[in-house]
Amino acid sequence: MTTERPAVLQPEMPATRWGDPAHASDLPDGVRDLVGMVFPLHDTPAREDVTVPAPRLPDDLVAGLRALLGDGHVLTDDATRRLRTRGKSTPDLLRQRTGDLGDAPDVVVRPGGHDDVAAVLAWAQEHRVAVVPFGGGTAVTGGLVADPTGLAGVVSLDLGRMRGLLAVDPLSSTATLEPGLRGPEAEALLAEHGLMLGHYPQSFEYATVGGFAATRSSGQSSAGYGRFDAMVVGLRVATPVGDVWLGVSPANASGPDLRELFLGSEGAFGVITEVTVRVRPLPEVKEYEGWRWPSFVAGADAMRVLAQADLLPTVLRLSDEAETAINLADPESIGGEGGADGEGPGCLMITGYEGTPAAVAAKKAAVTAALTDLGGTALGPEPGEAWAAGRFGAPYLRDSLLDVGVLVETLETVTFWSNRENLYTRVKSALEAALPGAMVLCHVSHVYATGCSLYFTVAAPGGEDPLATWLPAKAAACEAIVAAGASITHHHAVGTDHKPYLTAEIGELGAEVLRAVKRAVDPAGILNPGVLVP
Amino acid sequence: MTTERPAVLQPEMPATRWGDPAHASDLPDGVRDLVGMVFPLHDTPAREDVTVPAPRLPDDLVAGLRALLGDGHVLTDDATRRLRTRGKSTPDLLRQRTGDLGDAPDVVVRPGGHDDVAAVLAWAQEHRVAVVPFGGGTAVTGGLVADPTGLAGVVSLDLGRMRGLLAVDPLSSTATLEPGLRGPEAEALLAEHGLMLGHYPQSFEYATVGGFAATRSSGQSSAGYGRFDAMVVGLRVATPVGDVWLGVSPANASGPDLRELFLGSEGAFGVITEVTVRVRPLPEVKEYEGWRWPSFVAGADAMRVLAQADLLPTVLRLSDEAETAINLADPESIGGEGGADGEGPGCLMITGYEGTPAAVAAKKAAVTAALTDLGGTALGPEPGEAWAAGRFGAPYLRDSLLDVGVLVETLETVTFWSNRENLYTRVKSALEAALPGAMVLCHVSHVYATGCSLYFTVAAPGGEDPLATWLPAKAAACEAIVAAGASITHHHAVGTDHKPYLTAEIGELGAEVLRAVKRAVDPAGILNPGVLVP
Repeated sequence: MTTERPAVLQPEMPATRWGDPAHASDLPDGVRDLVGMVFPLHDTPAREDVTVPAPRLPDDLVAGLRALLGDGHVLTDDATRRLRTRGKSTPDLLRQRTGDLGDAPDVVVRPGGHDDVAAVLAWAQEHRVAVVPFGGGTAVTGGLVADPTGLAGVVSLDLGRMRGLLAVDPLSSTATLEPGLRGPEAEALLAEHGLMLGHYPQSFEYATVGGFAATRSSGQSSAGYGRFDAMVVGLRVATPVGDVWLGVSPANASGPDLRELFLGSEGAFGVITEVTVRVRPLPEVKEYEGWRWPSFVAGADAMRVLAQADLLPTVLRLSDEAETAINLADPESIGGEGGADGEGPGCLMITGYEGTPAAVAAKKAAVTAALTDLGGTALGPEPGEAWAAGRFGAPYLRDSLLDVGVLVETLETVTFWSNRENLYTRVKSALEAALPGAMVLCHVSHVYATGCSLYFTVAAPGGEDPLATWLPAKAAACEAIVAAGASITHHHAVGTDHKPYLTAEIGELGAEVLRAVKRAVDPAGILNPGVLVP
Repeated sequence: MTTERPAVLQPEMPATRWGDPAHASDLPDGVRDLVGMVFPLHDTPAREDVTVPAPRLPDDLVAGLRALLGDGHVLTDDATRRLRTRGKSTPDLLRQRTGDLGDAPDVVVRPGGHDDVAAVLAWAQEHRVAVVPFGGGTAVTGGLVADPTGLAGVVSLDLGRMRGLLAVDPLSSTATLEPGLRGPEAEALLAEHGLMLGHYPQSFEYATVGGFAATRSSGQSSAGYGRFDAMVVGLRVATPVGDVWLGVSPANASGPDLRELFLGSEGAFGVITEVTVRVRPLPEVKEYEGWRWPSFVAGADAMRVLAQADLLPTVLRLSDEAETAINLADPESIGGEGGADGEGPGCLMITGYEGTPAAVAAKKAAVTAALTDLGGTALGPEPGEAWAAGRFGAPYLRDSLLDVGVLVETLETVTFWSNRENLYTRVKSALEAALPGAMVLCHVSHVYATGCSLYFTVAAPGGEDPLATWLPAKAAACEAIVAAGASITHHHAVGTDHKPYLTAEIGELGAEVLRAVKRAVDPAGILNPGVLVP
């Protein structure tokens, strides 16, 4: 088939904030009252006109890039470079707000396809220039911050022109996508074929297919559709020493599964230029509901039972008591502030069902029976629909809170079921100890038969220097995760922020294996240097 | 918990045949008549008293091993060495039958646990001795044939003492098993906890947990319980340069999934000493049924629909017309020789349901409705029960056929649904062209949403030299698989037999990545040298 490209681009995000400025809103009064920790941010002008450091890359090298890609696809202006500086973690936003652009790339290039990418990588290897693949710019763990030590400079490889639907195989239920496609763009192209991906991380509106694969993203419908890495059946990867094209079958016994080495490789092993994924028919029906549980423990246990019975709805999430209390606009919806049983509002679970009417009805009936048996209280569609309406909105709220001096950030982890409570308690305690007066909220965002993720949201007074306030708390949380024997990240990836903790998770020899692979595919060390590989 | 070890060992298999000699049977007359190709095998005495070549390993090195493990666990007698020579492919059996024991290991060692394995590997690295991990000895792709070039000799690392259930985590539904546990032993230990693994490859009775992981095994209930690699959440691996202990969570975004690098590593990257797997409650109900389809195409398409609707029974298999005709003892069971529609016997599908009565009833009802809609004819439980009764019997039949001069072997592959017919036709044609007069049978043994496996059984006159008859046919089939763009193996692994075709599948750079990992974990090249890594 001919390559299809989306007609409309998502607008670029501002450097200091999330998303489309048209969607930004003032801080709701309710939230302002609730958080009770409003302070003016110190020296955070959130200016869009900050000066970017002068590029380090010599003119002759920039000229070499222009010769490769054409003048129009090699950009050195300040605004473009600023927009390719770091990602969208709270530290990233705070650094942008304070005008720290020390990590700005020297030049931004926009390859038009796999061959362009391969040419840039070969050029970068020859001239010892770091290359940072850039998709949606939504990284939250420092994955876009290359260490240029020993290199001539940093090229941001913006994949925004590689936004094609390259192939659809309806019989096999697969589609091949280019990496620069943002979530809504990929879905719009697939929808023309009656198909969908079904991958909805909170960053859905801006994050890209290449980023989903390179960071092992997991979305809000992952209970039904799986993690992104589980959807991938094929990858094409450009490296400085050649291409890898993997995926002749859904699975096989042809030795190690090398797809699993490039999934999660965060630009350090190559640039993903094509992704072949399982697709599904567009759902005819979408139904979201709320359930109330007397406690986080009870609700999580119910999730475990569903997962182990292979009886999962499309969406399954559970907020802890604190998150439930703060997220409910109307406590009456969950039985009043005292809760239906007089023991507080309890914990809100969201269940969602997507598919054909018959499949939705059958799954919903089975899940409803199981959850009722397990002690859940059905709350009807209202809480589910409220969640669905706001599912991509939290980063906008973060901006509004940062504006009034409230530090807000998220972090996440994953463990086996038997370790869930221990992990929860350790991380929550570590954050509360490190950030006096903080609110620490948590939800289970993804479940497996053998375990689940925990997603924490922290809000605290930012103080004079919100970044300095946050970093020790983040370190304390990471140390608590390691001490609990859990994974340092469920779906946010390693980047530079989590790299200090990776060796504890995979061992010294595991780290050496990563270095060995890195040497094989990137002998000059130009691929996203400093990211991922310990 | 204390390590539990099974009370009873499976008997050792004879060198020239499959399984327990007590279970061997004469060739049924029906099969003898059917195959119509009975010739006496030339020079295949199937003797059990063949002389094994003198060991190459110097006495001082053998003494070093005895110092490490104790005299009782270092064996050099001919019978033991012969029983650790190669695996159970038809070529392996034919070579044993003709007395070719050129690949015999020099010494067989029996480590008692992880530390013993680590000590042997460190010793082997120091003294440049090849180490071949040996589990059940059921390898069928040459995975037990180490190339000793440049090394002092070959040690067979028999994992038969490492047969413990190390841990059970009922809440997480996981268990940690030692690698030497054979299928029935693992299931018996888990059954004491009301749990099971649910992994039933045809080699189930002899193959081991370590082998399942090292070769990415797939079993007969994989539609419901998944491939073995998909069950694994944790691995402990001993290498000559240290240990790797992977699996802090079901899944995560901590970079590449290194478990997937050691799964399928076939002893070339280390010795798997512990495997943590998802377990399930023992099923209360097991029901197997037969379905008739007018054609292989129609039946395969029905499987595709089930897989893409996430509506899979526990067991789902489909024989092509030829396999259906030859496997049916009673053609009446499938509507008579002419078939219910007068167009031949059609194709037999086996469906199986395991679980709680309620879950089985619900799944069966949904699958039955779907298959009926798709044009299948329900045949009731008889064909399903006949299949279940004989599910591990085929290798015994192969011995009986080899006895009377009939060459019998299997091979398998996997592809995406849109390539299934092309792959089927190419491989079948290649085998028929290479082996005039051969019967080529096929079934789909495993399905995915995006594709399926094809498992071929070939029976042909063995001629004067059955091995020389088979090898060109195997090569032709492998070339057909590569030409069709499919995987060289769905679940039999690479070994030495498929190694020549691996680079076509993973590319030159993929092969270089495997070599890079190999150098990192096995710099002296002593781990199963010659196996897997191109």
